[in-house]
Amino acid sequence: MYYLNKNVEDLDRVFDQNKREGFLRLDLNENPGGLPQKFIEEVLSEITPEFVSQYPETLEFTEMLAQFVGTDIEHICLVNGSSEGIRYIIEAFSSPKGKIVGVTPTYAMFEVYSKMYDRNFIPVPYTENLEMPVSNIIEKLNPEIELLILLNPNNPMGNAYTEEEMKRVICKAKENEITVVIDEAYLYFYPKTFVEYALKEEHIFVTRTFSKLFSLAGCRLGYVVGWPEGIKMVQKLCTPHNVNAFAMKFAKAIIEKDGMLDDLIKLQKEGKAYLISSLQKHNYEFNAKEGNFIFIKPKTDAENLVKRMKLEKRILIKTYSGIGSLGNCLRVTTGEEKYMKQFLKALYELDK
Amino acid sequence: MYYLNKNVEDLDRVFDQNKREGFLRLDLNENPGGLPQKFIEEVLSEITPEFVSQYPETLEFTEMLAQFVGTDIEHICLVNGSSEGIRYIIEAFSSPKGKIVGVTPTYAMFEVYSKMYDRNFIPVPYTENLEMPVSNIIEKLNPEIELLILLNPNNPMGNAYTEEEMKRVICKAKENEITVVIDEAYLYFYPKTFVEYALKEEHIFVTRTFSKLFSLAGCRLGYVVGWPEGIKMVQKLCTPHNVNAFAMKFAKAIIEKDGMLDDLIKLQKEGKAYLISSLQKHNYEFNAKEGNFIFIKPKTDAENLVKRMKLEKRILIKTYSGIGSLGNCLRVTTGEEKYMKQFLKALYELDK
Repeated sequence: MYYLNKNVEDLDRVFDQNKREGFLRLDLNENPGGLPQKFIEEVLSEITPEFVSQYPETLEFTEMLAQFVGTDIEHICLVNGSSEGIRYIIEAFSSPKGKIVGVTPTYAMFEVYSKMYDRNFIPVPYTENLEMPVSNIIEKLNPEIELLILLNPNNPMGNAYTEEEMKRVICKAKENEITVVIDEAYLYFYPKTFVEYALKEEHIFVTRTFSKLFSLAGCRLGYVVGWPEGIKMVQKLCTPHNVNAFAMKFAKAIIEKDGMLDDLIKLQKEGKAYLISSLQKHNYEFNAKEGNFIFIKPKTDAENLVKRMKLEKRILIKTYSGIGSLGNCLRVTTGEEKYMKQFLKALYELDK
Repeated sequence: MYYLNKNVEDLDRVFDQNKREGFLRLDLNENPGGLPQKFIEEVLSEITPEFVSQYPETLEFTEMLAQFVGTDIEHICLVNGSSEGIRYIIEAFSSPKGKIVGVTPTYAMFEVYSKMYDRNFIPVPYTENLEMPVSNIIEKLNPEIELLILLNPNNPMGNAYTEEEMKRVICKAKENEITVVIDEAYLYFYPKTFVEYALKEEHIFVTRTFSKLFSLAGCRLGYVVGWPEGIKMVQKLCTPHNVNAFAMKFAKAIIEKDGMLDDLIKLQKEGKAYLISSLQKHNYEFNAKEGNFIFIKPKTDAENLVKRMKLEKRILIKTYSGIGSLGNCLRVTTGEEKYMKQFLKALYELDK
């Protein structure tokens, strides 16, 4: 009889992220404008036919990335977007029917991968005030749990864990011998990192992406940081040549370019501050914590607003329902001030 | 207790494909010279900051690829190199401890993935004359087998299955309800495709890559062709945005460019014919069947020759041991005549 994996058969996946070109894209937390044109051209001017035809070389880039992170290559594994790294950690460090704890809502793939590999995802819900007291996470941790996955700051809620909070969580995880993943996809929009834990202790991973602040979502690049034995397991799960040459080329150029990272952070911060200040003036209720995204409670129907934004203004945003006291609201990616102005103009026009 | 997946722990992987830049690379069956410089520049001239910062769009490319293949998008799933597609087929269409039949030697990842997911890979060995009688494959097929994976033409052996042979294999697989994967990584070096089977019947997949004739190994792109329900399962296993924007951009440009594919095939054939004719003149024993690679039996020690080729001539080739009557031999990627000349000059100088 033909075999079909039941977990895959039963899995629900959402694939609808096409025809976004030409829209102002504030729906997937990308950098809406991208990197400077001149920079792109400089990087591309070095591309040769051999660069394109040769299997990608990873060593030199991994070495420079390790230096950037403050470690060596044994602590780093490159992946085709950080989501791939999280998948491999789930595959290696949890078992069929095993238990994985995470908060809800969060990045949807944590739960999707759990289902894909027949793991039990145990969600810790936010409070009505959109808060995540770490004691609620800690009380779920026991020797039956194999993995804890936290996105910090968490998308879409924007909350970040303090050093003291994360220490308490990690301490409880250690007591119960639970592997911990801290996904830092939204690092730089928020300055605090827990990478030192992943570098100094065992069974703690930090995952990072080049899709957000680094503005390379089209290229696909992420990495996992952890203790050498753990990293070796993630590496063993990689498909051959999982990371492409263009992604590494651009990532290297950004890291090497003086002031580039700071400029990206500055533009982002200015844009977000502008957005918040304008929303306040217009008496909007919103939830703007860390990350390049905020929740806005619209004055009219959220679903309808998202549709009209797309059709009439060519602006893409998302709705979330049941966000505590905000109820149905908009999630809007933050970015350069000019894009925030474009969005706000449209919002004030339509949301009345 | 910390959980660690035993299959991953026990898995052996080989990762040593770095610092190949600047060498003449005849070791991994890439196109050594790559695509024309002018073509590369034309494609890159269209890249915008948004193209780089936006999550890749797949729909338009998948539609044009489907048309190229002679089907629609329901029959196609894009993957980050065809190896990723094969992995997902193994994950979906075979079970833990389940049995997978394949020939040996072949592409190493078939067996690696089998071990990764705790499948039993049942190898069918070549005869001493480097032949693979399909009856040897057929006799291994029974209701206990879940998956059959064949690379056609097979690397490194170069043999290809005739229509009649493949029909017999597929017929036996059907009788026993075994899903079949035909990996066509080396299509175009060999004109015959079995894609019609994947399009018309269920439980037959064809996988293809853009790394070989299409000369895009640095970009990472492959695809799986199959019946809609089967493709849906493969798609469900994909990490989000597994295929990058550059890969699709280049693949599209190659497919759209009049005569490009034919030119690539022509250059390859001329180079291979030149290589064979020269080896014959120099009384070399070799095995040159289909694909962009051949086996050569050197007159001196194969291992030593590979080392000297690298150190003294900056040419990368591979050795294989125990290749039937050829014993230890060289596997050399074929390509444009100028690269074959460079290789042969070095061979005749060192192999004496």
